[in-house]
Amino acid sequence: MSDLKQQKCEACSADAPSVSPQEIEQLKPQIPDWNIVEKEGQLQLEKLYNFPDFQTAIAFTNAVGDLAEAEGHHPALLTEWGKVTVSWWTHAIAGLHKNDFIMAAKTDEIREKIGN
Amino acid sequence: MSDLKQQKCEACSADAPSVSPQEIEQLKPQIPDWNIVEKEGQLQLEKLYNFPDFQTAIAFTNAVGDLAEAEGHHPALLTEWGKVTVSWWTHAIAGLHKNDFIMAAKTDEIREKIGN
Repeated sequence: MSDLKQQKCEACSADAPSVSPQEIEQLKPQIPDWNIVEKEGQLQLEKLYNFPDFQTAIAFTNAVGDLAEAEGHHPALLTEWGKVTVSWWTHAIAGLHKNDFIMAAKTDEIREKIGN
Repeated sequence: MSDLKQQKCEACSADAPSVSPQEIEQLKPQIPDWNIVEKEGQLQLEKLYNFPDFQTAIAFTNAVGDLAEAEGHHPALLTEWGKVTVSWWTHAIAGLHKNDFIMAAKTDEIREKIGN
């Protein structure tokens, strides 16, 4: 199976397929630290990232925001002092698409680049 | 009563006074669109701001982040496509300090400057 980080988001419409339980089983090991949570009846990928201060946290928020704009797929980013909680899901299908796993993997990659 | 927007945050410690119900009654009319919500047993000031796109939303997040750094008091900023939810409260006292009302008023001022 190809590396999620190397893939691009594909355009997503309301009739796009949600990931199946089998696909989740395949994809989840590539983003081991992400949690699959249910919010308002929708599955989401969620991860809390820690940082040494506010400035590094908001720099990370901006870097993930740049990725979101580039891929045309946008997360929820909760920025606080020393932490950012990132949530990915696909609004059009009210759940998880493969795109969300791709974005989660790329978010991990951004975190690695920032260091600390 | 002096304008909240003109005031600066004062240093806050665990023994700083929370706002009293009487003070809330005085201060709240200066930030009429903010909600007082209880989260995990703590009172917070919360407001949802809408924007025409993701870029304007994250620009607002950054502007509020700059204010937070300047005043040494930090909010929770939930950035999504076209909206930012801002929450102010005082961690040290696990509730609301006058500082939070000052920051809420200044957040409204930032929103006005961005336009749209």
